[in-house]
Amino acid sequence: MPRLTEYKDMSPRAKAVVEGIAAGRGIDPAEINNVWKALARHPGVMEQFAAEMKEAFAPGKLDPLTKELVYLAVSIANQCDYCIASHGTMARKKGMTDEIQEEFMKVVLAAQKGNKMAVAYRVPVDKAFEET
Amino acid sequence: MPRLTEYKDMSPRAKAVVEGIAAGRGIDPAEINNVWKALARHPGVMEQFAAEMKEAFAPGKLDPLTKELVYLAVSIANQCDYCIASHGTMARKKGMTDEIQEEFMKVVLAAQKGNKMAVAYRVPVDKAFEET
Amino acid sequence: MPRLTEYKDMSPRAKAVVEGIAAGRGIDPAEINNVWKALARHPGVMEQFAAEMKEAFAPGKLDPLTKELVYLAVSIANQCDYCIASHGTMARKKGMTDEIQEEFMKVVLAAQKGNKMAVAYRVPVDKAFEET
Amino acid sequence: MPRLTEYKDMSPRAKAVVEGIAAGRGIDPAEINNVWKALARHPGVMEQFAAEMKEAFAPGKLDPLTKELVYLAVSIANQCDYCIASHGTMARKKGMTDEIQEEFMKVVLAAQKGNKMAVAYRVPVDKAFEET
Amino acid sequence: MPRLTEYKDMSPRAKAVVEGIAAGRGIDPAEINNVWKALARHPGVMEQFAAEMKEAFAPGKLDPLTKELVYLAVSIANQCDYCIASHGTMARKKGMTDEIQEEFMKVVLAAQKGNKMAVAYRVPVDKAFEET
Amino acid sequence: MPRLTEYKDMSPRAKAVVEGIAAGRGIDPAEINNVWKALARHPGVMEQFAAEMKEAFAPGKLDPLTKELVYLAVSIANQCDYCIASHGTMARKKGMTDEIQEEFMKVVLAAQKGNKMAVAYRVPVDKAFEET
Repeated sequence: MPRLTEYKDMSPRAKAVVEGIAAGRGIDPAEINNVWKALARHPGVMEQFAAEMKEAFAPGKLDPLTKELVYLAVSIANQCDYCIASHGTMARKKGMTDEIQEEFMKVVLAAQKGNKMAVAYRVPVDKAFEET
Repeated sequence: MPRLTEYKDMSPRAKAVVEGIAAGRGIDPAEINNVWKALARHPGVMEQFAAEMKEAFAPGKLDPLTKELVYLAVSIANQCDYCIASHGTMARKKGMTDEIQEEFMKVVLAAQKGNKMAVAYRVPVDKAFEET
Repeated sequence: MPRLTEYKDMSPRAKAVVEGIAAGRGIDPAEINNVWKALARHPGVMEQFAAEMKEAFAPGKLDPLTKELVYLAVSIANQCDYCIASHGTMARKKGMTDEIQEEFMKVVLAAQKGNKMAVAYRVPVDKAFEET
Repeated sequence: MPRLTEYKDMSPRAKAVVEGIAAGRGIDPAEINNVWKALARHPGVMEQFAAEMKEAFAPGKLDPLTKELVYLAVSIANQCDYCIASHGTMARKKGMTDEIQEEFMKVVLAAQKGNKMAVAYRVPVDKAFEET
Repeated sequence: MPRLTEYKDMSPRAKAVVEGIAAGRGIDPAEINNVWKALARHPGVMEQFAAEMKEAFAPGKLDPLTKELVYLAVSIANQCDYCIASHGTMARKKGMTDEIQEEFMKVVLAAQKGNKMAVAYRVPVDKAFEET
Repeated sequence: MPRLTEYKDMSPRAKAVVEGIAAGRGIDPAEINNVWKALARHPGVMEQFAAEMKEAFAPGKLDPLTKELVYLAVSIANQCDYCIASHGTMARKKGMTDEIQEEFMKVVLAAQKGNKMAVAYRVPVDKAFEET
């Protein structure tokens, strides 16, 4: 079992990170999810990743569901089970219905196949794509 | 150099696929991009992928730009240079500004890091995520 | 440019490896392909890999073309351009026609998609598959 | 736990797919393996993948065991546990003995190493391999 | 469950490999870790890997902890849970404190991100880097 | 060609990042390497990555060469050509001789193989490794 540290047993630096996340989500810090309990022993890594996630999901031009789908697409391509489970859950909370998920999966799978095709057939990049 | 077949030299089956794609994009079949010229010697693979791409990008709940971003996210995670060049170009045609691209990259890079973290720290999936 | 060492400039240990490979293929050692010219500065790595390749491709139950296709399948999944180019060439020398290549690509692409599906849908392994 | 749908609870479209696969394998649709129970909520994805698998494994120039080994090679390179378990089982059913499996693994592992070597040493593709 | 063969049930060839490893580590052959119990049915693969590991970890210019960290870095990038668990344990035995692990993780995660950035932005290699 | 922005044409935010890096390396900002010229159009991504790299390579328990080798190991596993070229160069500047590089490559390649073996044989994690 990986070493998970519960909120009450975390260092002050780790607690501060968890409190910031919990406040943003409107949950109790004790209910924080496992990835943060695992990172707690490395507060430097934890602070950096929390800041990065906050910035990545800050309000902007892309809506929250689109951002979750992009995160989920990367996680599927990388085959990260934890990330698929956690961001799949978040995507559903942000509006991913079964219908949207099926559309999303079709694009992910087409990309997966297109990626390997381009590589297997050693396709040179078109000049028209080089400008951009 | 990989064997690229120009439109005029393709078999009737390959030509039919290219004509379908060209019609959909409003371009001349002779201007089709390289991936289709590379696939032309395997018409069965070509027909299947063309059908799959058509279905993946068919009008639905997700808008065209979101679909391109999902495709691009998978291509970056998989490190497919051709796919990044081609779908990056298409994403820009469908509305990806520099500002949107920066937001998108922040999510992709956070996911990239989150994926490896979850794996490196061997984080068990939370019960709350297992239901979904 | 990566440091490639021509046969005539290699150390005696590296020359010995190249001569063994060249003899097996019935070619002149000076015509050895680039991967060996690149490895020449690390004779320990070179000797180990040459031995491993010799054993992997030694006559056995699987015929030479099947072994090349397995090697090629791994190289496509891993997206190694050099390996796709070199083992694609060798596969053709050992009997891979365009028809066989298309059949092969269909299996590779189905696998590619099946792999990502199993992961994305978080499919648990069936009991019937656990015994084996 | 991922949402698995038992055959009896599937939609008519999903049932039709399962019945086709079960008929091909000579099994009861209720004994279908988990990947199809997981896909059942997305019948469009399911139909597409079933058609693709059917075509990939249709009788052709390559024998059924070779196709399973190619599928398995991709699954090992991609590290898909479900796919290794399921297609490993199928490969054994189609004739993979322990001796064949050892030969196969030697090729897979040599490829794995060769792939990373070619990339680490930044080996340029030989002209002789570019023509093909 | 994968087929694990206990030491007492192994073939003479497999036993010899395990005895060599156990002697090097100062443990009882019966306490050998699972990877060797899994490989036991393929003594050729086993012998080759044991020789390779012995050479990789032979005394040299790089100290034992550095080698474990390099092994661990590859295992995290490749997302191999078994390897992260086993070589993480070995790294700790060879001196990896929590402080060192945090430093190590920062480099691994920066590399992870840097890798995807270089690919996503399609960065051409600088001339100064080509010479080396 | 990817859009590279020369130092003189960068925005003030991008210039500030480049100046910080150039000062740390004792070079002219105009000689900055390509990855920063590519990132210049996304100053937010650039600032974040520069801060992350600075922290990852800050003086600590691990010496500078060890950190470069860890970075390089990840880059080889991920097959990032730019990163292998750039960090290979930096590793040599920090003391990587041909002899050290060969030792390093042996560990990287053993890990590469060990990773795939553990996955292919579906090896369960030993209890002794679970505690850590």
